[in-house]
Amino acid sequence: MSTGQIFVTEMLGTMMLLLLGCGVVANVILPRTKGFGGGWLLINFGWGLAVFAGVFVAFRSGAHINPAVTVGLMASGAQEFGPGIEATAGNAVVYIAGQMVGAFLGAVLTYLVYKRHFDEEAPGAVKLAVFSTGPELRSYGWNLMTEIVGTFVLVFVVLSFANWPGDLGPLAVALLVVGIGASLGGPTGYAINPARDLGPRIAHAVLPIRGKRSSDWSYSWVPVAGPLVGGSLAGLLAPAVAFG
Amino acid sequence: MSTGQIFVTEMLGTMMLLLLGCGVVANVILPRTKGFGGGWLLINFGWGLAVFAGVFVAFRSGAHINPAVTVGLMASGAQEFGPGIEATAGNAVVYIAGQMVGAFLGAVLTYLVYKRHFDEEAPGAVKLAVFSTGPELRSYGWNLMTEIVGTFVLVFVVLSFANWPGDLGPLAVALLVVGIGASLGGPTGYAINPARDLGPRIAHAVLPIRGKRSSDWSYSWVPVAGPLVGGSLAGLLAPAVAFG
Amino acid sequence: MSTGQIFVTEMLGTMMLLLLGCGVVANVILPRTKGFGGGWLLINFGWGLAVFAGVFVAFRSGAHINPAVTVGLMASGAQEFGPGIEATAGNAVVYIAGQMVGAFLGAVLTYLVYKRHFDEEAPGAVKLAVFSTGPELRSYGWNLMTEIVGTFVLVFVVLSFANWPGDLGPLAVALLVVGIGASLGGPTGYAINPARDLGPRIAHAVLPIRGKRSSDWSYSWVPVAGPLVGGSLAGLLAPAVAFG
Amino acid sequence: MSTGQIFVTEMLGTMMLLLLGCGVVANVILPRTKGFGGGWLLINFGWGLAVFAGVFVAFRSGAHINPAVTVGLMASGAQEFGPGIEATAGNAVVYIAGQMVGAFLGAVLTYLVYKRHFDEEAPGAVKLAVFSTGPELRSYGWNLMTEIVGTFVLVFVVLSFANWPGDLGPLAVALLVVGIGASLGGPTGYAINPARDLGPRIAHAVLPIRGKRSSDWSYSWVPVAGPLVGGSLAGLLAPAVAFG
Repeated sequence: MSTGQIFVTEMLGTMMLLLLGCGVVANVILPRTKGFGGGWLLINFGWGLAVFAGVFVAFRSGAHINPAVTVGLMASGAQEFGPGIEATAGNAVVYIAGQMVGAFLGAVLTYLVYKRHFDEEAPGAVKLAVFSTGPELRSYGWNLMTEIVGTFVLVFVVLSFANWPGDLGPLAVALLVVGIGASLGGPTGYAINPARDLGPRIAHAVLPIRGKRSSDWSYSWVPVAGPLVGGSLAGLLAPAVAFG
Repeated sequence: MSTGQIFVTEMLGTMMLLLLGCGVVANVILPRTKGFGGGWLLINFGWGLAVFAGVFVAFRSGAHINPAVTVGLMASGAQEFGPGIEATAGNAVVYIAGQMVGAFLGAVLTYLVYKRHFDEEAPGAVKLAVFSTGPELRSYGWNLMTEIVGTFVLVFVVLSFANWPGDLGPLAVALLVVGIGASLGGPTGYAINPARDLGPRIAHAVLPIRGKRSSDWSYSWVPVAGPLVGGSLAGLLAPAVAFG
Repeated sequence: MSTGQIFVTEMLGTMMLLLLGCGVVANVILPRTKGFGGGWLLINFGWGLAVFAGVFVAFRSGAHINPAVTVGLMASGAQEFGPGIEATAGNAVVYIAGQMVGAFLGAVLTYLVYKRHFDEEAPGAVKLAVFSTGPELRSYGWNLMTEIVGTFVLVFVVLSFANWPGDLGPLAVALLVVGIGASLGGPTGYAINPARDLGPRIAHAVLPIRGKRSSDWSYSWVPVAGPLVGGSLAGLLAPAVAFG
Repeated sequence: MSTGQIFVTEMLGTMMLLLLGCGVVANVILPRTKGFGGGWLLINFGWGLAVFAGVFVAFRSGAHINPAVTVGLMASGAQEFGPGIEATAGNAVVYIAGQMVGAFLGAVLTYLVYKRHFDEEAPGAVKLAVFSTGPELRSYGWNLMTEIVGTFVLVFVVLSFANWPGDLGPLAVALLVVGIGASLGGPTGYAINPARDLGPRIAHAVLPIRGKRSSDWSYSWVPVAGPLVGGSLAGLLAPAVAFG
């Protein structure tokens, strides 16, 4: 795969992830949607199946669609990011650039799909929450802890998939993300992916959303730093406990 | 497969899709059912598993059960609609005719299953909603946009299934439809299939439903045009980004 | 497999089905349970996963665990009920006898698991509903129609599983049952299995349940006759439309 | 695998199980979480997917992550606990020790993830319920019965997985646990695993949780004894009814 193809593939997969992921939040919290008030399990399945779709789309580049996965793979000492793609720092930059652009575009598409609902009256915090995560109880240290543990689980279990000789493919990651959301998403809304949070936050900042509030940049570093730390820890630990 | 066999197979698969799909809506919104008020996730699983059943039934013809899939495959330049079935305009007409007849019949069966509940007092808009989709906020342009994007996701990801060497078969499409409903169904109710909307709308028009309102023909073109455009765009774009 | 082994296998599989199936209803409707008021989707997943467990347990006899499946297979002209088991009327009697005994035993186990909750004050109709199905709107003709169509879908789609070269095994039936419940269970509570309804109804009649009402024998023929008719129709029709 | 590797593998798998399992309870019942009041099905999926993650992590040791499974395998006369690991009493001790330590650690991690929510005002019983199970209606005999039957189903069906020539791997156990929770979890909260209950109970006793109540040691023997009995019965019965 050429560098450009890697970029486009990760971009499209992450775009799909964010379109469907931000979409389910819009459906549950924006006014006058069919899924309004649909509950946390609906949000968990929405994000899990967003990953499902994104992994199929980006399968040929290894379907990272998440900088924490790219960084975690490097930390684990993996030789390849995907079939025939060397795990170099240079390639990591290409992956992450594609993911960031895709995340931004996916959030823009969600905005277009729910345009009429964004035009309705709703608190600015609700409209921001379609795009980016935010903690229920703000406490940078503990919020960071939550994001670190959540992303650790994501990357550690993904690396553990190889323990089982069978293969559920994209379904395994999708279900894992449903589970992480159900179990660890309560405090911060489980970014567990820097692109998932930062890309849409930039989209929120630049889009002409009716009645929008600030994009809460003071929190924005948590869902970037936490996932990068958690993913790296998983990458470092996983090989040490994978016994032949 | 003969032309008649293609017609019957797509008809039966789409009949199954609409029987179960309209069925879950009836269960959630008609009065005095066991699933009354069961929520959006129930509706999403109902439609996803309706696709699951329909795809098994119509597997031998490629299980389009959706004109947007048939049109999207043509747009993608695919050689075959199903095993040994050439992707010609003539065959496309047979597929779509079978889908339309099946969608009509499936909606009629749902009516029979829920006959006593249709006989109860309920707003005409509720009874129509068992059959056909309608937007929460009417705005033809944005409603069309929503249906275009939703169907684009459906057909683009279905074409991406080939990226993964494994095969989840009908489960993959079922879960994808659960996800599209959860994430993109909020504004319009995700027709994402012209037959799914038009066939039952015709059934609504001709069935002797107690206290029914008009079949809302003024909106009926949106869930036909949107899916055809979205499916075609996916068919055109997918091959361009499927890198070997 | 010997006749006795067939009997025991179907008995154990159907026992598992009813223990888990009646169990989820008990959890949702009996007073002071953890799942009280858990909703229709919970009930649908409970029954679907009850089938999942039952099919694994009874896999060696073909996992009918439902007289409508046994009868439907005979109607379809199938040569075998399971690996190496001839599809004869005599064997059908053994299957159905095992299913009936297992269904009774499963319901008794559910009673024991929820014994303290049955001891609480609750309407007799609620306690009966843990065991057997009943319509929301009583109308024998339409209730029969609902059960016929629901069981037709079950058996017809199960016979269609062979269209796909892959195999999801017990998961496919489980998801199908989730879907039938979500979509067609609204009017009557989807018996779609004569043993599922009659076995627990007998258990309800003989168990010393606190404050129980009558076992509603006047309705009891509907969830027996409907599934047998629906399963037979599916068995007759499926081969006619399975094109090579 | 060395003894130390078995210990670490079971410890990590059970840690993952409890982190995600206690996590979903925290999300649903602690104040001011995103999943507050999310319902029983959310809890069932949370625990099922906790098993999913734990089984992947501990796959190389056979993924017991539950003393009732270890004991049930011994009772069944199995030769091996996992690939190349003899089913001896000595190894059983190693498995169970790893599971207990892992369960404790997983609960501690959940505490850290939800630290700020534990700091909020909430009844002590709610905070205990994040860690350990407790009956809705206290009755040691019937509570024991419920745990025996629930664990019997778990181990018996897991041993029945071998009946099907296919393999869903960790997904099969995950779905089974969703089903047991949905159907049999109503009275006691389905420990069905001594480590799942006792490890977190010890964590509750030692952690500096704000406003905590006693750890309810008078009930603590039920979710230990019940699962050990139920698992043993399943191990004894399963081979007797597994007909070639």
